[in-house]
Amino acid sequence: MDLLSIKDPSFLKNLSNKELEELGREIRQFLIEKLSVTGGHIGPNLGVVELTIALHKCFDSPKDKFLWDVGHQSYVHKILTGRACQFDTLRQYKGLCGFPKMAESEHDVWETGHSSTSLSAAMGMAIARDLKGESSCIIPIIGDGALTGGMALEALNHIGHEKKKLIVILNDNEMSIAPNVGAMHNMLGRLRTAGKYHWVKDELEYLLKKIPAIGGQLAATAERIKDSLKYLFVSGIFFEELGFTYLGPVDGHDYDALFENLAYAKKQEGPVLLHVITKKGKGYNPAESDKIGTWHGTGPYKMETGDFVKPDLSPPAWSKLVSETVRKMAREDERIVAVTPAMPVGSKLEGFASEFPDRMIDVGIAEQHAATFAAGLATQKMKPFLAIYSTFLQRAYDQVVHDICRQNLNVFIGIDRAGLVGADGETHQGVFDIAFLRHLPNMVLMMPKDENEGQHMVNTAIHYDDGPIAMRYPRGNGLGVPLDDELKLIPIGSWEVLRKGEDGAILTFGTTIAMAMEAANILQKQGISIKVVNARFIKPLDEKMLTEILNKNMPILTIEEAVLQGGFGSFVLETVHDLGFGHVEIDRMGIPDKFIEHGSVDKLLQEIGMTTEDVVLRMQKLARKKQKRA
Amino acid sequence: MDLLSIKDPSFLKNLSNKELEELGREIRQFLIEKLSVTGGHIGPNLGVVELTIALHKCFDSPKDKFLWDVGHQSYVHKILTGRACQFDTLRQYKGLCGFPKMAESEHDVWETGHSSTSLSAAMGMAIARDLKGESSCIIPIIGDGALTGGMALEALNHIGHEKKKLIVILNDNEMSIAPNVGAMHNMLGRLRTAGKYHWVKDELEYLLKKIPAIGGQLAATAERIKDSLKYLFVSGIFFEELGFTYLGPVDGHDYDALFENLAYAKKQEGPVLLHVITKKGKGYNPAESDKIGTWHGTGPYKMETGDFVKPDLSPPAWSKLVSETVRKMAREDERIVAVTPAMPVGSKLEGFASEFPDRMIDVGIAEQHAATFAAGLATQKMKPFLAIYSTFLQRAYDQVVHDICRQNLNVFIGIDRAGLVGADGETHQGVFDIAFLRHLPNMVLMMPKDENEGQHMVNTAIHYDDGPIAMRYPRGNGLGVPLDDELKLIPIGSWEVLRKGEDGAILTFGTTIAMAMEAANILQKQGISIKVVNARFIKPLDEKMLTEILNKNMPILTIEEAVLQGGFGSFVLETVHDLGFGHVEIDRMGIPDKFIEHGSVDKLLQEIGMTTEDVVLRMQKLARKKQKRA
Repeated sequence: MDLLSIKDPSFLKNLSNKELEELGREIRQFLIEKLSVTGGHIGPNLGVVELTIALHKCFDSPKDKFLWDVGHQSYVHKILTGRACQFDTLRQYKGLCGFPKMAESEHDVWETGHSSTSLSAAMGMAIARDLKGESSCIIPIIGDGALTGGMALEALNHIGHEKKKLIVILNDNEMSIAPNVGAMHNMLGRLRTAGKYHWVKDELEYLLKKIPAIGGQLAATAERIKDSLKYLFVSGIFFEELGFTYLGPVDGHDYDALFENLAYAKKQEGPVLLHVITKKGKGYNPAESDKIGTWHGTGPYKMETGDFVKPDLSPPAWSKLVSETVRKMAREDERIVAVTPAMPVGSKLEGFASEFPDRMIDVGIAEQHAATFAAGLATQKMKPFLAIYSTFLQRAYDQVVHDICRQNLNVFIGIDRAGLVGADGETHQGVFDIAFLRHLPNMVLMMPKDENEGQHMVNTAIHYDDGPIAMRYPRGNGLGVPLDDELKLIPIGSWEVLRKGEDGAILTFGTTIAMAMEAANILQKQGISIKVVNARFIKPLDEKMLTEILNKNMPILTIEEAVLQGGFGSFVLETVHDLGFGHVEIDRMGIPDKFIEHGSVDKLLQEIGMTTEDVVLRMQKLARKKQKRA
Repeated sequence: MDLLSIKDPSFLKNLSNKELEELGREIRQFLIEKLSVTGGHIGPNLGVVELTIALHKCFDSPKDKFLWDVGHQSYVHKILTGRACQFDTLRQYKGLCGFPKMAESEHDVWETGHSSTSLSAAMGMAIARDLKGESSCIIPIIGDGALTGGMALEALNHIGHEKKKLIVILNDNEMSIAPNVGAMHNMLGRLRTAGKYHWVKDELEYLLKKIPAIGGQLAATAERIKDSLKYLFVSGIFFEELGFTYLGPVDGHDYDALFENLAYAKKQEGPVLLHVITKKGKGYNPAESDKIGTWHGTGPYKMETGDFVKPDLSPPAWSKLVSETVRKMAREDERIVAVTPAMPVGSKLEGFASEFPDRMIDVGIAEQHAATFAAGLATQKMKPFLAIYSTFLQRAYDQVVHDICRQNLNVFIGIDRAGLVGADGETHQGVFDIAFLRHLPNMVLMMPKDENEGQHMVNTAIHYDDGPIAMRYPRGNGLGVPLDDELKLIPIGSWEVLRKGEDGAILTFGTTIAMAMEAANILQKQGISIKVVNARFIKPLDEKMLTEILNKNMPILTIEEAVLQGGFGSFVLETVHDLGFGHVEIDRMGIPDKFIEHGSVDKLLQEIGMTTEDVVLRMQKLARKKQKRA
C-alpha cells in the first residue's frame, strides 16, 4: 500500500495477518530507504515494526495512549499516524522530529528524548483517567535498558502499589544504545531462556484456591507453597513481587502471539507488564548483525552495503581525543577509573575498556548512580573520570551538588556533547550545564579551544587534587590541530589572549572562538581592533585578566553556546560589578530563554543570532557606544 | 559506663551480651536526655542502638566502612566513636553535626543528608578496594524508605551484577519520615511476616546439587524446579533475583541474632543484603508508639511526658498555609491533585489527605518520579500541586527541565524550606533553587512577602494556565498577618513598592524583606531615603518597575537568601545591562560561593554578612558612590 496515503491507524482494524506482514515489509523498506539518506535511529525502529502495528491494531489511539520511552523508536508510529510524507525532513531544521512531538500529532501524547520517563508519566495519566471517571488504556513502551534508570524503578514501585490499570510493554532487545548491563538485565536473560510465554496463571490461581485455608502457623506456610508453585509456573516473579501481572516473554515479531497477549492484558484490572522480545535492526542485515550499537542511530549509509557515507572525519572526534588521553594517562596512573552511564561507544571508551577492563565501569542507564559511584571511588583516593553527555548530567544534578561538590571530591567530569547537538534536538541540547554547574561551590569548569588544549586540560584535570573539575567538549570532531607530545598543566583559572586589540574585547571559549576570530579580522579591516580572549576557565574566571581589560575601559562581548540566563556572560557581569566596573559596556551573546529544536548547528546558530555577522554588528555597536561616551 | 570516656569502639570487643544490654540502656537514656534539650532525630537513633553496637563489635571501623544512608541515624555511631561529649552542641552553630561528617571523625567515611546515596558510594569504595588489592568490609546501612529512591535501585542493579563483596544492611522500620508506601514496602511486609530468618540456604543448595543434571529441554525445567524450591525455603527472592544473597529478616534488637547473621554475611564473597527489623523510637514510649512520624525528628521535649516544648507557634507554619489554601481551592476545583515524595507530614498535607484521599498521592522517596508523574497528570488537564522541599527538588532537576518546562506543562511546584533551614545544615539548605530554576524556559518563580500574599500566590498559581509555576516559601512560621477572605490573582511578573524613596532601591523578596524595611528606617533617620521593592516575581522580573528605578539612576541593592552566583541579583544585573543601564550602581547581597553548615538561621546570616546592619552599611556605600558621581 501507499504509506504516504495513511492518515490515521484506523485502516489497520480490517487487515488480515497476511496484509499486516506485507505492511511490515513495506514499512521496513521505507525506513531503510529514507534513513539511508537522512540518517536516524534505524535499529530501534526496525525492531518494533510488528509491535507498533499490533499496538495500533489492538488499541484506539489517541483515546488509548502510547508513551514511547526515549522515543527514538517512534518512527513506525509516526508512519501509521499520517507522517510518512515528512520523512525526507527527518531530524532536519523545521522538519520531522526524531522523537514524539505533541505539535506534530494528537497521537503523540508524551514527548520523550531522555530515557525512563514514560512510566511516571503513564501513572500520572492513569490517575487522571480514574479521577475523571474516564476509561482508556495507558501504554508505556519501555526498553530493557531504560527500565534500569532510577526513575523508572521508582515508578514501578509506585504503580505496583496503587494497582491502577496500566499496560507496560517491556521491549526487550537486550540492548539500549550499547549492550545492556546490570542485574536486571541478567534476570531478563533468565526469563528469556525460560521458554515460551504462558498465562497458565488463571488456571493455576483456580487450583490454588482449592487448597483449603489453614489457620495459625500453617497458613503462612500454605501461602509460601502457593507462591512457590506460582514461581514454578510463572516467570517474572521480580515484577510479580512488585505488584504487576507479568506476561511473557512473547515474540515481538509474531502477530498472533502479540494479539493474544495484548487482548489478555487489556482485560486485566491492575498493572500488567508484557515482556516482548524484539530484534533490533530486524529485516536489515547490517543492522541486525550489529552487536555493539553502531546501528542504534546513524548518519546516511549506502542501502545496498550498509557502508556509512561518512563526512570527512580526519580530525579526531572530541570524545575520542578525551578518552584516549585519559587512557594514555591511565598507563602511568593506577588511580584512574573510567565511569560511563551506558555510553561506552558514544564516549569512545572502547580503547580504554579493552586496555583496562577492570578500570572501566559501565553502570547502565543510571546517571545518578554513576555520579555518586564516582564520588565513592574518589573517597578512596581513586581518580574517577565520569564521561557523560551534558544533557544527561542534568539527571545527576543533586549528586553533583550533594555528593561531589559538597564533599569536595576529586571527580573529573568529562561533559561530552556540550553546546548545541543538532539533529537530536531540544531534549538533547547541551546548553544548561554552565548555568547549573557554575553556582556550585568547589566546582572548576573549563572548555578547551582545540584538541591540543583539550589534552592538556585532561592532564590538568587528572592532576588537580582540590575537588571536582569538569571539562566541556562539543559533539563532533576537533579542528585537526597538531598535538604536543608532552602533556602540560594549564594554570587553574587562567585565560589566554588569542588576539590583541584596544577597541573592545571578546571573551569566549570552545566552539565559538572561531566566529570571534573571524569577526575580529573583519572589524580590523574597518579600523576597529578587537582583543579576543580564550576564556577557557568558565569557573573560576581569570579575574586578573578581566581586571586588565576593565581597567582599559574596553567594551566587552561575551559569547557562549549555552543559555544566557545564569551562564558565563552572567558570571562576567557579576564579577565586573563585584570588581566595581559596572560602568563598562558589556553585551552577552548566547542562547535565549527558549528551548531550541532540532536542525543543523549552523542553522540553529543563525536562527538565534549567533553568527560571525552578528558578532561584527554587536561589536560595532559596542564600540560606537564607547566612542559616544568618550 | 561513662559514655563520655569512650574514645573509639575497640572496647566493645570484650563486652558480654549482658554488658552490651547495659550499654544500650545507657545510650538510650543519654539520647533521650540530651535530645530533650537540643532536639534531633530521636526516633531513628533509638531504633538502631543494638544494630550500631553489633556492627561496631563485629567489624573494625574505620578499616571497615559504615555508610549511614540519610545519616540522621548516626548518633549512636557518634557516641561509640568518641563524640558523646559534644551532644550538648548537637545541630547548633559550630556544634556537632546531625549527620555523618568526615571532619568530625575518621569513622565517618561518607557524608549524607539526602537519602539513597549510600549504595552507590559503597560500590565505589568496593571497586576501589578490589583494584587496590585491599581487604575490608563496606557496609551501607539503608532504611526501607530510602531503598525506594531511584538511585538506590540503580545501585542495587549495578551491585548485583558486579558481584563485589558488599554487605547492605536493610534497616527496616516500616517508616522513613512518614509511613512508607510503594510495592517494595508491601513486599518487605510479606517478608517480615514470613517468619524468622533462616539461612537454610547452604543446606538447600547442597540438596539441590544432588538433583542429577538433565540435558536438553528438561534442564531448564529442572532449573525452574530448583528455583522454585529455593523460593519456598528462602525469602527475599526479589533481592536474590537482583543478584544478592538475602539474609533475614532478623530482629534488630537481638544481639545473638545480629552477631550470627553479621558473621555469616562477612564470610560471603558476593553482595549480601541483611534484612534487619528495628523499631523506631525503641525504649522511649512516646516515640515508640508514634505512628505517623512525629518523633522522627523533633525540637526539645519534656523527657518525662514527651510533651513538646514548642516555641510560640501562633502564626501558621508556611507549609500549612500553603497546603490549606490548596485544600480550600480543591473544594471548588476538581483538577487539583497533591503530590508529595514521602513528606505528607512535613508538607502539612494531612488535612488535604483526609478530605481528598483520592487526590493526594504520596509516591514515597522518589523525587524524580514525583515530578514527572505530576507532568503526566498535567497532560490530562489536571492541576498537580507538587509539594517538595527546595533541597529535594535538586534531585528532580532533569525532570523539571525535560518533562515539565520543555513540554510547558501546568505543574504548580510548592518549593518548601526555601532559603537557609538551620539545624539540618549544609545538605538541606534550600539555597540553590533560584539558580537552578531561573535559567529554565517557561518557568515562573515567585516568593511571597507574608501569608496573605502567599495565599493569593497559591490562587494565582492554580489559575495560571501558561506552563509551570513555582512558589518558594521558607521553613517555619509566617508573620501572623491577617488573611483576606477573598483570594486574589497577582499579575504575573509584577513587583510591589513597599516603601518609597529616592536615594536608592532595595529589591528583595520573602524573608529578607524585614531586614530591608528595618534598614530603610534606620537610613531614613540618616537622611537617606530608600525605596523598598517586594520583588515577589523572581522570574519573570518586573521590567517596567525596574526601568523606572533605573531611569531615576537610583543605586540598587538586591538581597536574597540564596546563592549569589546565577541567582536573583545576577538576573537583575543581566536585565539591567540588556536594558542599557549598565552604568547604574548595583550591589548584590546573598549567599557566597561556599556550603553553609548548620546553626540557627540568624547565626548563619550573621556569619555571611546578611544582617540589617550589613544592609545599612552597603546601602550607605552605594548612596555615597552615587553622590560622588553626581
